[in-house]
Order: sequence, then C-alpha cells, then structure tokens
Amino acid sequence: MELTKELMASKTAAKQDTRIALLEVGMDIMLEKGYSNTGIQEILSALQVPKGSFYHYFDSKENYAVEIIRHFDDCYTTMLKTIVSNPEMTPLKRLRTYANESRNKLNDQACRKGCLIGNLSQEMSDQSEVLRTELSIVLAKRLELFAACIEEGQKLGEIKSQHSAAELADLFMSALSGAVMMAKTLKRIEPLDNFINIMIDDLIKA
Amino acid sequence: MELTKELMASKTAAKQDTRIALLEVGMDIMLEKGYSNTGIQEILSALQVPKGSFYHYFDSKENYAVEIIRHFDDCYTTMLKTIVSNPEMTPLKRLRTYANESRNKLNDQACRKGCLIGNLSQEMSDQSEVLRTELSIVLAKRLELFAACIEEGQKLGEIKSQHSAAELADLFMSALSGAVMMAKTLKRIEPLDNFINIMIDDLIKA
Repeated sequence: MELTKELMASKTAAKQDTRIALLEVGMDIMLEKGYSNTGIQEILSALQVPKGSFYHYFDSKENYAVEIIRHFDDCYTTMLKTIVSNPEMTPLKRLRTYANESRNKLNDQACRKGCLIGNLSQEMSDQSEVLRTELSIVLAKRLELFAACIEEGQKLGEIKSQHSAAELADLFMSALSGAVMMAKTLKRIEPLDNFINIMIDDLIKA
Repeated sequence: MELTKELMASKTAAKQDTRIALLEVGMDIMLEKGYSNTGIQEILSALQVPKGSFYHYFDSKENYAVEIIRHFDDCYTTMLKTIVSNPEMTPLKRLRTYANESRNKLNDQACRKGCLIGNLSQEMSDQSEVLRTELSIVLAKRLELFAACIEEGQKLGEIKSQHSAAELADLFMSALSGAVMMAKTLKRIEPLDNFINIMIDDLIKA
C-alpha cells in the first residue's frame, strides 16, 4: 500500500515535472521568437516529449501560452514585489533598483528578448482576446505594485505629488516598456539609461 | 510612335499602381496582424494579383516588408515633419499636437493597430536583422526630428534644459511607444492621456 502511494506520488511528480519543463522551454522560446514563430514541434523535440503528452497538459497553443504567461508572471511578480516593497530602501531607490536590474539584464542579453509580457502584448493584443485578457491582468497587477510604491514615495515627499500615483505608475510603465522596445530595435542600451537618469533620477523626483 | 509611348507610359503606370496597391494592402494587414501572421496569399486574393506578379516586384516576404516599412515611413515622416517643424506653433505645442493626433487616431481605432514601426520593432527585432536595420533607420529619423523640435524648445526656454535634446527625445519616444502598447493591451486610452498630461504638459515643461 505504502509502496503504491510512493509510486503514485513519484508518477505525479514526474508528470508535474514534464508540465513545468514544457512551460519553461516554451517560455524561453516564446520570449525570443514571439507567439506566432514558436512551433509546438520545436518544443516537443527539445524535450523529447510526445505530442499526445503535450495535449494532455494543454488544450491548444493558445491555452499553452496562457499557462506560460501565468508561469512567467508567478516568478516575475515575486521578484518585482521583493524589490518594490522592500522596506529597507526608499520608494524612489526601489524603482531605480528595479529599473537598473531590467537595464542590466537586457544589456547582458545584448538587447535581445526583453520582457515576455511586453513582447506578447505588442504581438497578440489584436490577435487573441484570450491572450490579451491574460496579459492585461498581468499589466494591471504590475501597475498596482508600482502605484503602491509611488504612493509611499509621495507620502514621504520623495516623489512629486502633482499627479496621482496610479497616473505616474502608468507613465512609468509606458516609458520603461517603450525603452525596452527601442533598445531591442536600436540594439543599444541608452534608452534604458535615459529612462533611469531622466525619468527616475530627475523628472518624478520631488 | 507617340501612341506607343503613351501605351508604354500607361503600362508603366499600371505596373506602378499594382506595386503601390500591394504595398498599401500589405501595410494595412501587417499593421493589424504583424509580420508572421500576414500571409502573402491573403494579399494576392484581396487584390486579385497572381503570385508571379508579386514576385516580379518583391524578392521575398522579407523584402516586401522592407518596402512596406519604407512606404509607410515616407507618408509618416512627411506628416511628422509638418507637425514638429511647424513654425506657427511653439515646440511644446507641436509635440502636444503630434501626441494628441496619435492619441485620437488610436482611440478612433478602439485601441487597435497602433504604429506599424512599433509593432514590427517588437515582433521582428530579434528575428530578422534585415527588418531590424530598416526599423532602426526609421526610429533614428524620428528621434532626430523630435530632438530638433525639443532643442528649439530648450533654446526658447519652453522645455527643460537639464538633459540634452537627444536624451529627452529618446525618453519622449520610449514613453509614447510604450503608452501605445499599454493602450492596445488594456484596451483603454488613458496611457496616452497620462503621457500627454504628465510628460508633455508638466514634466518636460520648463
């Protein structure tokens, strides 16, 4: 009886591993190539997983992408929260730390890839209402985290208060996402540097 | 002799018309669906043009996209120049007018489509060095036009001078492109409103 339980647990773990592996590999490929250019066969070959197994976990490519977005978001939101809610830094310092980390990561990747959410937003918002809805949930969640941090900075007198925290968070995310897009196209990191030096260290600073 | 010349001229005009029609239809479809999701067959069917004729004008889909980018850029740059070099408005007013027009167009399109250059930049910068190079030429051209306008505003004391015109133009374009992307995903126009109200009417204003 115990052995059977153990066997079942190990089988469940293996299944869970396959699912996670499919999500991780799909996430990497989709980050680099976008949704339309990602072939399921490429992912199956990379992992040596049969097609039937893929469709056991995911109904369709679209549903697979939804799960990839959620998986990416789980990891990303945890990282983002750790930085923008860190009580050991002032709110402006937190925003700068987050922007610096985004900048350094993009620079290390030779201005390739960028952010999965930004890439899929641009590519798929008009193509799939299912993906757009999922992406908008992630964007709204990030906007809330940034707004909370900015509001704290406004209360401390560290960030300008002429505009609401929600409005500033909106502009902050627009400018950061756009800077990543520009850096990817121009293959130079300056748009991120300008975002940090001008927007964070000067314009929104009280 | 005169008749032959006329016939030849009319044939050349018809050929030119077909080429332009292929560019215009391709531009519309690519703006809505992106590069990967655009099928050449769809364009040929829409125009009732045979495949051979398409390949008479364009070597490949990639080359076709390059020509679409150039065609789009020709029209767009003319419009952009008219606004950002208009001597009848102050530089800041010109930037606001341009941003307002972008905002209203996106709003009229129910926050769909956006800008072909931004869309293809996000989708294709890591996929095709040929397209990335073409897109980066367009971005650089726009950055120059914005920088010239901002520099004029700085000289007039209308725009802040703590940062160079080129750096501010970089941030201006990042924030505008990102706002368009956010608006497309959230299907609400506020990111554009926030960009105009906060960035133009407040933060960069001297």
